[in-house]
Amino acid sequence: MSISRRAFLGSSIGAVAITGAAPLQAGQRHRRIPLPDPMRLWDLATPALVADVDHLEANLRTMRDAYAGGATSLRPHAKTHKCPVIARQQLDLGAVGIAVAKISEAEVMVEAGIEPLLITSPIATRGKLARLLGLARQAPTLQIVTDRLQNVRDLSDGASAVGITLGVVVDLNAGDDRTGIALGDQAVTLARAVAGADGLELVGVQAYAGRLQHVVGWEARRQQYTETMSEVMETVGAIRRAGLDVHVVTGGGTGTYDIDREIDGMTDSQAGSYIFMDDNYRDIGGRGGPVFDDFEPSLYVLATAISQPVDGRITVDAGYKAFATDKEPPRLRDIEGVTYRFGGDEHGILELSSPSEPIAVGDKVRLTIPHCDPTVNLYDHLHAARGEQVSEVWPIAGRGRSQ
Amino acid sequence: MSISRRAFLGSSIGAVAITGAAPLQAGQRHRRIPLPDPMRLWDLATPALVADVDHLEANLRTMRDAYAGGATSLRPHAKTHKCPVIARQQLDLGAVGIAVAKISEAEVMVEAGIEPLLITSPIATRGKLARLLGLARQAPTLQIVTDRLQNVRDLSDGASAVGITLGVVVDLNAGDDRTGIALGDQAVTLARAVAGADGLELVGVQAYAGRLQHVVGWEARRQQYTETMSEVMETVGAIRRAGLDVHVVTGGGTGTYDIDREIDGMTDSQAGSYIFMDDNYRDIGGRGGPVFDDFEPSLYVLATAISQPVDGRITVDAGYKAFATDKEPPRLRDIEGVTYRFGGDEHGILELSSPSEPIAVGDKVRLTIPHCDPTVNLYDHLHAARGEQVSEVWPIAGRGRSQ
Repeated sequence: MSISRRAFLGSSIGAVAITGAAPLQAGQRHRRIPLPDPMRLWDLATPALVADVDHLEANLRTMRDAYAGGATSLRPHAKTHKCPVIARQQLDLGAVGIAVAKISEAEVMVEAGIEPLLITSPIATRGKLARLLGLARQAPTLQIVTDRLQNVRDLSDGASAVGITLGVVVDLNAGDDRTGIALGDQAVTLARAVAGADGLELVGVQAYAGRLQHVVGWEARRQQYTETMSEVMETVGAIRRAGLDVHVVTGGGTGTYDIDREIDGMTDSQAGSYIFMDDNYRDIGGRGGPVFDDFEPSLYVLATAISQPVDGRITVDAGYKAFATDKEPPRLRDIEGVTYRFGGDEHGILELSSPSEPIAVGDKVRLTIPHCDPTVNLYDHLHAARGEQVSEVWPIAGRGRSQ
Repeated sequence: MSISRRAFLGSSIGAVAITGAAPLQAGQRHRRIPLPDPMRLWDLATPALVADVDHLEANLRTMRDAYAGGATSLRPHAKTHKCPVIARQQLDLGAVGIAVAKISEAEVMVEAGIEPLLITSPIATRGKLARLLGLARQAPTLQIVTDRLQNVRDLSDGASAVGITLGVVVDLNAGDDRTGIALGDQAVTLARAVAGADGLELVGVQAYAGRLQHVVGWEARRQQYTETMSEVMETVGAIRRAGLDVHVVTGGGTGTYDIDREIDGMTDSQAGSYIFMDDNYRDIGGRGGPVFDDFEPSLYVLATAISQPVDGRITVDAGYKAFATDKEPPRLRDIEGVTYRFGGDEHGILELSSPSEPIAVGDKVRLTIPHCDPTVNLYDHLHAARGEQVSEVWPIAGRGRSQ
């Protein structure tokens, strides 16, 4: 990339149509939107969320190959991308289904024809139950987790009332202490309740050990994860010894994608972040070394240098509203010797200690993504770039759907 | 509030229509949307962003009264609320205009008929210039800041080309080193360039000292702020001695709202957060004591307890996607002896050390807002509550408009 490509007077007129005032209609929200004329990446209106499609497709293929022919399948988690266009590609490459975090995310995916779906977080109110049942009537393959006996009764009452059979997965507490029923007898009791409930079908169990996804060092991660999943499998055995079918043992994620495959009895991995990879995941290390580089970083934020108030410092137009801030700040993707720090809601500050390329006001820079899921949730669209050309926009139809 | 009101089986069917799949049409995005039937607050689908309208209106009145009859006016910053319904109320109560951070935010406000607008951040590309000029033709009162000579030439060329006179405010670096021209001779030179440029009109100066807005302790804040603004006023004097008119000296914010009024020559304060107040501002202290309580907290997130994996802990359905995370975590609004910590993208963990009220799965809780601006930017709608009744939804039409 030469500095001339990030030159001052790039036109971004084409982006106005996409990022401007008119909201997308329902039919547009799950399809690729071709731009009337392809744009240069460097002409996008900033801050803009950009997917490097070559890298994204490489990640899709790497994951497909990793799971090809094994006993474990892939059920990618859509809470990462919230984008039906990407979910469709995941299904086309062999995913057995798509995981979603919440009912409202499932609604968007059903609208886009994405099935089968598993909702990975339990619900606890009659309002959400009504939405769930309405959605399950549209999409009979819809499944949801449960972690309480009262919830099983409510799901059963609802499913019976509307005359459907709802697939239910018992959510196990695999040590995160976030959701899930305790391993052992309580889990067996809950599974038995699901299996015996009118209107429900016991599908299997979910065991997500989120705290282990980011253990630094692959060997340490594998050891801790294998131990945890061994305990989970003891409970799975107990449920089966109680005479119940456990068709699905789902869990895992990007940090354990190549360990999930080794867990005997695990049917599918809910890896999500692999599609984009973020700084936080890269820093945990992989099987091959201190950087987890099995997947390519395929997502970044394009920002514009808008001011240089003092020497050695450049202000860009991307701040707290352009990145999730729960992890370390973003980094420059192409230029070394420059650090980014947040400069408030609307701005970031580049400290130019020894920049490998000059940066001037008007230039655009690419910034890495510290944590992909909540960053994607800030944007309405992914700009799909091949090299330096953008010819499509992919709606993030599930943005803000945390209900 | 009794626990029964946060009971398990509240219906949230009414909220489906609002938070469900259909995007709002352009004409709906700047108006209050009445619900077909008023809902109980506790029946909203969660996580939901809720404004306590009685408190919000009290804040509007408090600010109006604070600025009534003085030499300084109010130009509230809309980057806080991004909501035309609120901007309209601010104008109706005497604000001299509305400040916006970016072009795309201005576009939304113009669409809603909100004028006059000042864009408080400089632009640096031809694409943004084209959007600015298009908008200025629709809204001739639109003004923008500048902090560079080259930018003055570009604004002048553009305004001349489309045949308009654009109001320009010289952005001064009041010590934040974020945007703005250096005080003194450079600022005078820039002001002279604006005044002499075809198609431009010199309106005045902006001097925003963001770093001083959150100085803890009112006396310390006043001292530092007064010193900084005294330096700013020296530059204003130098610009005037150069024979140029400075009609506007704008800046300030919620942290200095009652100091801005004391600054001789300051024409208006850009306070924004006062409309909601957040934990971060409350903690800086006010004139009256260690809590800055001149304004009422009027914004919160309603969340639902969805799981209790272990004793002493409750999981709610609001995490990184429900709150900005650049400040301390949220707090419970109504219940003491409970702390919230983030539990990932979708969840929060309540640690129940000695809860003043019981919390059970299915209950809803109100969580405070650590930092209002980037939290509001996560939601499409404000649920406008009077007491425990919600009968209107206010679109956050500028959500995601950071370009």
